[in-house]
Formats: sequence, C-alpha cells, structure tokens
Amino acid sequence: MSAHKEKTVAELAAHVGGSVAGDSSIVISGVASIERASEDEIAFVEDAKMLENALGSRAACLIVPEDFFPESEGKCLIRVARPKLAFALIAEILHPPKRLPASIHPTANIAASAQVGEDVYIGAHVSIGERANVGDGTQLYHGACVGDDVTIGRDCIIHPNVVLYDGISLGDRVILHAGVVIGADGFGYVPDENNVRHKFPQIGTVIIEDEVEIGAATCIDRGALGETRIGRAAKIDNLVQIAHNVQIGARVVIASQTGISGSTVIEDDAIIGGQVGMGDHARVQSGAIIGSKAGILPGKIVRAGVWWGIPVQPLEDYKRLNAHMNRLPQLREEVKELRRRIAELEERFKDEHGDSK
Amino acid sequence: MSAHKEKTVAELAAHVGGSVAGDSSIVISGVASIERASEDEIAFVEDAKMLENALGSRAACLIVPEDFFPESEGKCLIRVARPKLAFALIAEILHPPKRLPASIHPTANIAASAQVGEDVYIGAHVSIGERANVGDGTQLYHGACVGDDVTIGRDCIIHPNVVLYDGISLGDRVILHAGVVIGADGFGYVPDENNVRHKFPQIGTVIIEDEVEIGAATCIDRGALGETRIGRAAKIDNLVQIAHNVQIGARVVIASQTGISGSTVIEDDAIIGGQVGMGDHARVQSGAIIGSKAGILPGKIVRAGVWWGIPVQPLEDYKRLNAHMNRLPQLREEVKELRRRIAELEERFKDEHGDSK
Amino acid sequence: MSAHKEKTVAELAAHVGGSVAGDSSIVISGVASIERASEDEIAFVEDAKMLENALGSRAACLIVPEDFFPESEGKCLIRVARPKLAFALIAEILHPPKRLPASIHPTANIAASAQVGEDVYIGAHVSIGERANVGDGTQLYHGACVGDDVTIGRDCIIHPNVVLYDGISLGDRVILHAGVVIGADGFGYVPDENNVRHKFPQIGTVIIEDEVEIGAATCIDRGALGETRIGRAAKIDNLVQIAHNVQIGARVVIASQTGISGSTVIEDDAIIGGQVGMGDHARVQSGAIIGSKAGILPGKIVRAGVWWGIPVQPLEDYKRLNAHMNRLPQLREEVKELRRRIAELEERFKDEHGDSK
Repeated sequence: MSAHKEKTVAELAAHVGGSVAGDSSIVISGVASIERASEDEIAFVEDAKMLENALGSRAACLIVPEDFFPESEGKCLIRVARPKLAFALIAEILHPPKRLPASIHPTANIAASAQVGEDVYIGAHVSIGERANVGDGTQLYHGACVGDDVTIGRDCIIHPNVVLYDGISLGDRVILHAGVVIGADGFGYVPDENNVRHKFPQIGTVIIEDEVEIGAATCIDRGALGETRIGRAAKIDNLVQIAHNVQIGARVVIASQTGISGSTVIEDDAIIGGQVGMGDHARVQSGAIIGSKAGILPGKIVRAGVWWGIPVQPLEDYKRLNAHMNRLPQLREEVKELRRRIAELEERFKDEHGDSK
Repeated sequence: MSAHKEKTVAELAAHVGGSVAGDSSIVISGVASIERASEDEIAFVEDAKMLENALGSRAACLIVPEDFFPESEGKCLIRVARPKLAFALIAEILHPPKRLPASIHPTANIAASAQVGEDVYIGAHVSIGERANVGDGTQLYHGACVGDDVTIGRDCIIHPNVVLYDGISLGDRVILHAGVVIGADGFGYVPDENNVRHKFPQIGTVIIEDEVEIGAATCIDRGALGETRIGRAAKIDNLVQIAHNVQIGARVVIASQTGISGSTVIEDDAIIGGQVGMGDHARVQSGAIIGSKAGILPGKIVRAGVWWGIPVQPLEDYKRLNAHMNRLPQLREEVKELRRRIAELEERFKDEHGDSK
Repeated sequence: MSAHKEKTVAELAAHVGGSVAGDSSIVISGVASIERASEDEIAFVEDAKMLENALGSRAACLIVPEDFFPESEGKCLIRVARPKLAFALIAEILHPPKRLPASIHPTANIAASAQVGEDVYIGAHVSIGERANVGDGTQLYHGACVGDDVTIGRDCIIHPNVVLYDGISLGDRVILHAGVVIGADGFGYVPDENNVRHKFPQIGTVIIEDEVEIGAATCIDRGALGETRIGRAAKIDNLVQIAHNVQIGARVVIASQTGISGSTVIEDDAIIGGQVGMGDHARVQSGAIIGSKAGILPGKIVRAGVWWGIPVQPLEDYKRLNAHMNRLPQLREEVKELRRRIAELEERFKDEHGDSK
C-alpha cells in the first residue's frame, strides 16, 4: 500500500550518490521491473546477462553497476556501486508508504483515558484501550485492537485486525501487518498431581523496538515474568511464532513460519530461514545464518557461520554427511564385495593349508 | 456453514448419473456418514468391508459402487461408478453454502466510491475501501476488510476478519476462510553498508482466479514489482504462506502450514502436502506430488512423480536410502566381522609364511 | 491480561499447603522472578544454584523446597514439595485473569434470537449470531465473531478477533486467544474426471470441552460429517492446525505450529512438541511424548514413550541411528582400510601361490 511521487533522474541520482549518463531532466514516476517498466519508470540491472533486455526495455532510466558501459547511448543510466540498493532507496522516495489524512473514524472505540497524538489516522472498527498512548503520525487500520496501557510510538503503521494485548509497547516507525497478535499469554503450565495444568503466570510484557516490521499473522507472546523483546530494525516474516521471554537482537531477519521457543536469544544481525524450529533457552550468536527447516535443540549455542539441518550443524558438515548418506548404497555394495573376496581368500587358504584350528 | 434442501432419490440419482434400486420417491434431506445417518439421510459405501454396516444403518439410501449387489433388498441404493464423488455432488445439492439475504449491515463502513453489485451481503463491522468493486451475489462476513481499489468477483464468500490489502483482485466464486490475509508486503529488503535493511519495493499485486478456496489464516503476499497469482480452482489449506511473486497453477492443492518462497512456480495440478517448505525461484511441474514436510531447495526443478524428504528426492530413492540408513547398525556389525576375519587371515598368513616385508 | 490482589504470606502458604519460616503477616501483592521481584512480591527457587541469588533478592518472600534450610534467617520462606507449582497456584490468586464488568458495548451486533447469560462482557465490534448462546460470566473481546447456533459455556475468555463459525460448541472456562478460528471447513475434496475438485461435505462441527486453552491464530476445522473434538483441559499453543474430525484427548498438550491431519486421534495426556506433523488417521496413545519437528505417517499408531524424528521412532533408536550416521565418514574410512588390507592379502597370496584359477 503505497503512494506515488515524481522526481527527475538528477534528483534520484543525487539521492543515491550515482552518476547520470543521458538526460538527467527526465521525470520518473515509479520503479518497475525491466519486463514491466513503462516510459516514465526506472528499473535496475545487476547482472550482465540482463543488460541487453534492460537496454531494450521501455524503462525511462536504468540503474546500473559502475562498471557497465553499454554501447547503446539511447538509454538514460544512473551508475552506482549497488544498483539493487539504489533501486530500493529510490523506491522509498517514489513510493512512500500510504499515509491517510489524520482522522478518527466514527466507528472507532477509543477509551476516554487513551492519549492520541497529532496527525494520527484511526480507521473503522478500531478499539483503543484505557490509558493507551498512540504516538504522532501513527496509522491504525480497520479492526485493530489496542489493549489497555499499550504504548505505540510515532509513525507506526498498524494494519487491519492486528491485536495488541494489554501493556505491550511499540517503538517508532514499527510496521505490523494484518492479523499480527502481540502479547498473548505464553505457553507455560505446571501440572499438579492429577496432571491438571495450572498456568505458570504469564504477566510480563512485549517490547518492540523502533523500525521493526512484522509480517501477517505472526504471534509474539508476552513474557512470563519478564519481557519478550524484538530489537531495533528486526524484520520478521509472516506466520512466525515467538514465545515468551525470547530476545531478538537488532537487525535480525526471520523468515516465514519459523518458531522460537521460550527464553531463546537471537543476537544482533543473525539471519534465520523459514520453518526453522528452535528449542527453549537456545542462543543464536551474531553472524549466524540458519538455513530453512533447521532444528535447534534446547539450550544449544549456535556460533557465527552458516548452519543447516536437524539438529543444526555447520553447513559444510551437513553437506559432507549428506554426501556420505547418498553413497550408502555404494558403501553397502563395497562391503558385499569385500565379504566375497574375504570368503574367497578364506576358501583358498583352507584349500591350500587346511583348517589350522 | 451450509443450508439444507430436500430432494427425492430419483432426483439425486439423475444428478449423479446413477441407477436406483428400491423406492426412488424417498425424500432425502441430507448427507451423513453411515454411523450417524438418520432415516431421511443418504450415505455412501466404497469399501466392501463397510457394506454390512451400511446395510444395517438407518440411512434412507446408500450410494454404492456399480458392482455391489447386496442381498438385503430392504435398502434403497443408488449405484454409480464413484460413490464418494457422487456423495460430494449430492452434498452440493442438499447442503449448498449458506447464503444470507442481500443486505448491508448498518455498522459496515463502505467508501462512497466503492461499487457494490446486486444481491450482495455485507455483514457487521466490514470495511470496503475507495474504488473497490464487489461483484453480484458476493457475501462478506463480519469484520472483513476490503482495501482500496480491490476487485472481488461474483458469488464469492469472504469469511469473518479476512483482510484484502489495497489493489488485489479476486475472481468469481472464490472462498476465503476466516483470518486470511491477502496482499501484505512481501519479505524483501536490501541491506545498506550499516546492515540497515531498506524495503525492496513491494508494490505489485495479488490475483486470485475463479473458484479458488483458501483456508483460515493463510497469508498470500503481494508481488514485489509484478504479481502473485493463484490459479483457477486451486485449493489451499489453513496457515499456508505464499510469498511475493509466487505463481500457483490451476487446480493445485496445497495442504496446511506449507510455505512457498518468493517467485517459485507451481504448475497446474501439482499436489503439495502439509508443512512443505520451498525455497525461492523453484519450480514444481505438473504431475508432481510433494510429500508432507518435504524441503525444496531454491531454484530446484521438481518433475512429475512423487517426491519426499529434505531435500526432496523421488519417493523410491527416499525409501531405499531410508532402508539403507535403518540398516546402518547392521552394516557396522558386518564391517566389524570382516575386520575380524581379515585380521585372522593376516595372522594365519604371518604364522605360515612369516612377514614378507 | 490480569488483575492484582493482595494476600498475607500466611494465606498464601495455607493455599498451597506450605509451612512458613519468618513473618507470616507480610502482605504480598504479586509474583515475580528472583531478578525482578520488588519488596512486596513473592518469588520461587527450585534449584540450589539459585538459592544465593534468591536470598539476596528484594523479594518479600521465597517459595522453596522442603529440604532447603538457608542460613540467612532474614528472608521469609514458604516451604513446599513443589515450589514451581505452588508459585503457579499463588499466581492464580494474586493475578486472576482480568474480568471486565458486565456490559454490552453499543457497537456490538447481537442477533435478536441470541441468548446472553448473566455477568457477560461483550466488547466493541463483536458479533453474535442467531440462536447463539453465551454462558454466564463469559468475556468476549473486541471484534470476536460468534456464528449462528454457537454455544459458549460459562466463564470463557474470548480474546479479540476470534472467529467461531456456525454451530460450534465451547464448554466452560475455555480461553481462546486472539485470532483463533474454530469451525472453518475441513480440507477435503473429491476430484471429478476433469480434475475439478468438489468439496467433500464439511458439515460437521467442533466441540471444545471445559478448560481448554487455545493459542493465538490456531485453526481448528469442523468435522466433515462428524465432529472435531478438543478434550477437557487440553492446552494448545499458537498457530497450530487441527484438521477435520481430529479427536484430541483430555489434558493433551500441543506446542506451536504443529499440524494434525484429518481423523487423527491423540489420546489423553499425550504431549506433542512444536512443528510436529501428523498424517491422517494416525493415533497417538496416552503416555506418548512426541519431540518437536517429528513426522508421523498416516495411519501410524504411536505408543507410550518418547518419540522423535521423521518418521517418528523411539528416541533411543533415533539417537542410536543418529550416532551411526555421524560415524559414517569413519565407517567409510574403515571400509577403505579393509579394502587395502584385503588387496594386500590377495597380492601376497598370488605372489606365494600363484593364481589358482
């Protein structure tokens, strides 16, 4: 959901520190892929194989690596060190997130004790609880539910039907996609002598730091006694489960459908693939990259490097072991052959020397 | 959620091209299992082992294979080639999806520029955005959110609390179960030199073709620059993740909790089990059947046939390798035995010939 | 989301059958961890290693095992057999779930034929369908949708944006977290000769028994012809998928992101880890504990004991096989060595005896 703006090639090149070849006064109104670009759009090329297609496209301008000197002089170019990054930065300018004008929909249900900042959009069927605080410039879409004593920072985007339980806290510029649930009770029970489970108290909170983005239907449980924390600028995909008291570091990336059990720590800048499962009280250190579908046992410490498999092991080990497993049928054949040769030796030995026993 | 109608056995048999044995004027008011059928309901049998139970049931009529000639003449029968299919077709007649009368609930929030067709039901707490278009006969339940510029076809059923982000498009007779999220931003970022992630533009769309059904809490992200597409009559289960720019073919089936990464293509008629994970830019060809929990690496092409495991391999290979792994302890014992026999041979050789070195 | 009460140490000790050392008149207003406890809070210690920290904490009172006799006499203690259980029981007293006063929000949409009991809280933007029945003391939060003919027992807590499809039934003291979906159509189709899938009738129901708690965004489908049932006091985590006709026994525990296919039975007291996948028509017997990420094939019967892996096997077998796999490189080396020794034997044999062939 984004708006549209227009800029000249010169303005865009300045924004990304690039140099222009061609007419820098061309007005660009959007970004596009090479295949779909129209005459007022800008595309990017990073791969020399795509260059010919790019030059033949309708794009008004191409963002290209500094070492590309295409012969076609007809196309306007912006040369930069990292075209894909420049493309993303330009898209931030040309397609800023949609901002609805400040307003409160008449169907919204806002507690008298809630504090709503300046320039806030509150959509239809939203609820905001007692003593909640919504920062300036934040947008709350249809059906979002903000519990009592929740704090939301400035310029957040809360998509439809998000649920924030009581007492949780969001920083500034946080984006929560539709159906996100933050602050539900963690999953902890203590069985009594009749195996009836009593809830271990789930009375902590969740703290989401600035610039975090969380994908649709992801669930982040509140701390049992302490807090669950998502560090600054972490990016979390759809349908992820984050249990009570998990600590996610700054700039961590977590792909879809991964599940992280209670009290596990993921340090700054770690990258976690999709459908990964982590036991409780594990620790993923900075510099670790965890491949999709990996499994991390409770209490495990995963150091920097690339990890793979169930249970996780260094990617190189995983590959080597996998190769060994794939050669198992061959190994079996080799053992059979050795067995045959030994039997033959034994037979010959017996023939020529008799049984020495 | 379904309504109830009544039909005679004759009418039902005609609908499924079956032949009746017994009183074809009996009125049937519902389908049921053999165990639970009451005197005005119809059940089906496909397995000869179930036949006796079926004849003893209270069902008013049984749908049976053409080659069943039960001796009990007391029971009304409809004979067809495929009883389970006939049962499903008869259930479509007797239990059509619930249709609420055309109406717009006073709590619904409908933009002035939205177009709502004939015979549409719009439930409580629904929102419909600017320039959205809702086709004739569509039913939108409680709390559904239709973004700006969304197009919804005819006779769709949008269950409670579904979220359709701006600009996405649904065909006709689409069914979306509760909590589905369509069109959230795809998960794509470009890190800068400080490892701050900038959103790669997620400004494409999602196209859902006719007769698609999508299970509860499934998330389908919008294309980054292009579109994410779900092909005609595809059936997708609950809690599935479909990333940006994925292309799902016609009549594809995807079971629960499967995740499909960006730009992956699933061709027509492929069948995907539950909890499968697919890397990005993979391709599953027509005729492929992917077993539950399989893992498909990025860029992998999966041909027709049955596939299994992490990473996926043909089921036969998977089974063979699995058998080899299960025999590993035995292989180890064999190697030990060979080692013992070799040592013995070496010993004898030395005893009788001395060490030739 | 919980309230706060105050009790003396004497009252709390009596509640958990513990004996007090120190001043039993101290007033306690909450539970806390050792690290975070303030002067009016109670904490617990189960591990002797934590004892010193605990005695040094600010907690007003500690719950300790009966065999702990700390030298520090300054701290008030409650001695019990199971401190963690006592802590949970005390938390139930000091932090009872939040109860909003009986009221019906003016934005709620309640069918005229619905029956709402005494002392019920119905929040903003809730819908309650025709002939639905809400028991005494139940709390329905923002945006919850209760379908037609739904029965909800007494003292349930239905968190925001939960969806209950038509006809499903909840017992007493059930807790459903935000975004739960109960009663969506099961995933069952019958393909016709053109591979067009017709919905197998999904016209059964879901029965949730007393004291069940279900985590955020979990989906439980209705039975196809019969019912899906969640047994008394079962505890289910977030983002779990439970398919049509599944039977979950009493006191079963299921961790996050697990998926259970159609008609599978989980008997009383079984414990299921996270991200487990179960095929259809499987049975997990009482006393079984299934490790995270395990895979259970359709029709499999899993007996009491600890199970692990894909496909599941007894944990001991899994560990043994895993050890064998990790020694594969070594096994390969051994086979190589044997090959060398055999070749040497063969060579010597030939040297000394000539080729006997």
